[in-house]
Amino acid sequence: MSGPVQGFSKLSKEEKIQWVAQNYTHNPEQTTALLKKYWNTDTQLQKLHDEFIENTITNFYLPFGVAPNFQINGKRYTLPMAIEESSVVAAASKAAKFWLTRGGFRTRILGTEKVGQVHFLFKGEFDRLEQFFKSVKPRLISEATPITANMEKRGGGITQIELRDKSKELPDYYQLHCTFETLDAMGANFINSCLEQFAKTLKDAAQEFEAFSPEEKNLEVVMSILSNYVPNCVVRAEVSCPVSELNEDDGIAPETFAEKIIQAVRIAEIEPYRAVTHNKGIMNGIDSVVLATGNDFRAIEAGVHAYASRDGQYRSLTHAKVENDTFRLWIDVPLALGTVGGLTSLHPMVKLALEMLHHPKATDLMQIVAVAGLAQNFAALRSLVTTGIQRGHMKMHLLNILNQLGATEEEKLKMVDYFKTHTATHSAVVEAFQKLRAN
Amino acid sequence: MSGPVQGFSKLSKEEKIQWVAQNYTHNPEQTTALLKKYWNTDTQLQKLHDEFIENTITNFYLPFGVAPNFQINGKRYTLPMAIEESSVVAAASKAAKFWLTRGGFRTRILGTEKVGQVHFLFKGEFDRLEQFFKSVKPRLISEATPITANMEKRGGGITQIELRDKSKELPDYYQLHCTFETLDAMGANFINSCLEQFAKTLKDAAQEFEAFSPEEKNLEVVMSILSNYVPNCVVRAEVSCPVSELNEDDGIAPETFAEKIIQAVRIAEIEPYRAVTHNKGIMNGIDSVVLATGNDFRAIEAGVHAYASRDGQYRSLTHAKVENDTFRLWIDVPLALGTVGGLTSLHPMVKLALEMLHHPKATDLMQIVAVAGLAQNFAALRSLVTTGIQRGHMKMHLLNILNQLGATEEEKLKMVDYFKTHTATHSAVVEAFQKLRAN
Repeated sequence: MSGPVQGFSKLSKEEKIQWVAQNYTHNPEQTTALLKKYWNTDTQLQKLHDEFIENTITNFYLPFGVAPNFQINGKRYTLPMAIEESSVVAAASKAAKFWLTRGGFRTRILGTEKVGQVHFLFKGEFDRLEQFFKSVKPRLISEATPITANMEKRGGGITQIELRDKSKELPDYYQLHCTFETLDAMGANFINSCLEQFAKTLKDAAQEFEAFSPEEKNLEVVMSILSNYVPNCVVRAEVSCPVSELNEDDGIAPETFAEKIIQAVRIAEIEPYRAVTHNKGIMNGIDSVVLATGNDFRAIEAGVHAYASRDGQYRSLTHAKVENDTFRLWIDVPLALGTVGGLTSLHPMVKLALEMLHHPKATDLMQIVAVAGLAQNFAALRSLVTTGIQRGHMKMHLLNILNQLGATEEEKLKMVDYFKTHTATHSAVVEAFQKLRAN
Repeated sequence: MSGPVQGFSKLSKEEKIQWVAQNYTHNPEQTTALLKKYWNTDTQLQKLHDEFIENTITNFYLPFGVAPNFQINGKRYTLPMAIEESSVVAAASKAAKFWLTRGGFRTRILGTEKVGQVHFLFKGEFDRLEQFFKSVKPRLISEATPITANMEKRGGGITQIELRDKSKELPDYYQLHCTFETLDAMGANFINSCLEQFAKTLKDAAQEFEAFSPEEKNLEVVMSILSNYVPNCVVRAEVSCPVSELNEDDGIAPETFAEKIIQAVRIAEIEPYRAVTHNKGIMNGIDSVVLATGNDFRAIEAGVHAYASRDGQYRSLTHAKVENDTFRLWIDVPLALGTVGGLTSLHPMVKLALEMLHHPKATDLMQIVAVAGLAQNFAALRSLVTTGIQRGHMKMHLLNILNQLGATEEEKLKMVDYFKTHTATHSAVVEAFQKLRAN
């Protein structure tokens, strides 16, 4: 086996493509042509997209869809959704329309606290460490002023720095547990910059702290980094209506429908195998809007699922009940989102998505995104407890399979009709299609 | 507030765009032009992408980058990665190159079991339910034959159906807990189709089961659906080398470097605030390849984070140790992936990504994706315990901000140089850039 490819990142885009095509594909010319086919014809625009990351060779298309009819706190929205999975946009639209005539969605911010930590090792007396921390705290804040000044002008900044003793869990391990208000920014760069400054101040000040022994002075910072676990950066979204208004077109009584939804949610509250998929459906809605608005879905996913397991068992993010003949479904979800910084003012489609959402502040976007999750959950529960999940899903999937088989529009219509009464597995579709062509 | 938009989904793409542009943006003409600018000039290709989901109005570009120099079980790979976050591809490439000269990555499949459940309510004696289950089990399998026949021909199918008593957690609640082998398919459609058939058989057979009381016969299925929690569909990836070979170009001794990495991992093993972000970094690598290969990142995310919390506390997915002077870093991660079905044979870029990866089987892809996660973790840990996370990250982010400000190539070079010795927060960059222009 040969050594590393040297200097790959320094190659031009054309050279990178040539290298990949020749070394990893069977028809280099065809590969090159395909990659270029996905380039935007506007070279300036393409250059912008190329520079978002490293070694970009082309664009990966995610469908950008829209889900209309969302009413949130009395205001009408059409949600921009970037997602590759069929049925998600359709389900969101259907849920939005259902609730539009039943009061819409209501939301409320429960907190906006962001978190970061300086993780360090200290070999010595905790009492002296506490004493040191008290004395160094003002300096931690003042030496971070060059970083925090602008954020403070806008009303944000460092909200708290706390010393945490974790030495029972890991010998000599302590933290500066820090909280921040980052306003419309997601805040990763701001928080990490603050933390790295805290770490520097902490080390310097320890060296100078006279009560410390020589070993104590050599306090060692392991790392300084924000946390994507944000259990106090949470939004609540809910829908409710009189049970009697839960009329369905599937011929199910409103009371039965409410009861079935509540049973399904209760199961997701107590059974992790179910909860994971229940929440996965919620994330279909959440991530679609997170992606379209230029936010980082890995950060959101990590924070949400950790939150779902916060009491020691992985559970549903949504809850449902009937009280005084009123049905209510709600979600509490941690969402550290930004509407400035990052891609928000760079990616033209992200800018458009934010314009479509009436240029939201971060707290507005939190509410919209939570609603996207709740809508998705309602739609999934509704399918699950009535027709089953496969009917809606397979209809879209069927079209994808038929496209793959090169079906004509006429053939598609015939096949959709056929699979209204047959189970549309991949192999069944292929088989039926072959029969259709054979006739 | 007016009523719902009726029949939106039935509008043509042009009409949808017109409606969105006129109702939700300030300059409808400009909006329309922008959306169309992102269409592919090949109308057939665009139509294919439009049909993946509902209400598609354009394409959302994610950069498609490549990370070369991965050696996995002795074989060379270049990873296709679809991701909007800067530094991820660079970090992956850097980690790959580091390990290429130290034996590369080694991987092993620990299991491929997929899971699905029929959730039902039964009001009666558990003994009789068990007796019923025993008698109905062969029929559950035989009536699913039309769905399972093809999968069985290829060596997969239903592996187990188990009755689980959950009535202590929720009155009258029981499950058919079912496991499957779905080979190269992710298996969602197959599993859901099987489960919906199981549910039908279960209800029918209960009605006919003579030992049941009338109430017991009315066993009620709440829902039937696969689980994205797959703790037995797991792959292990690892790197190792003699500690003495962990030489770094950052002037840190190999032993210290190993020790610092191990400390950082240990912290992520015991502290949830850190673990969430530690794992988020891993998911940067995992999701990039998951997206590029047409798999569903929400499913993967949900399964992975639930797995990280399986013992009651959210913990690191990776582990590290030094034993006999050998440093070892490894990850165990549940990955239910597919390399057939879904988008894998529809999305031209997904097809190319799979070709680049030597047309992997699902188990091959599991191993590649796990390596992407481990590489990302190593790169993040390496930055965190040496230079800090901000240095590498801000360099790329700086270029994004400069693009946003419309900097020329010459201005960019000057600014990159300036921020080698200054903290590059967003506002600091704006300020420095304004000064540069003012000079």
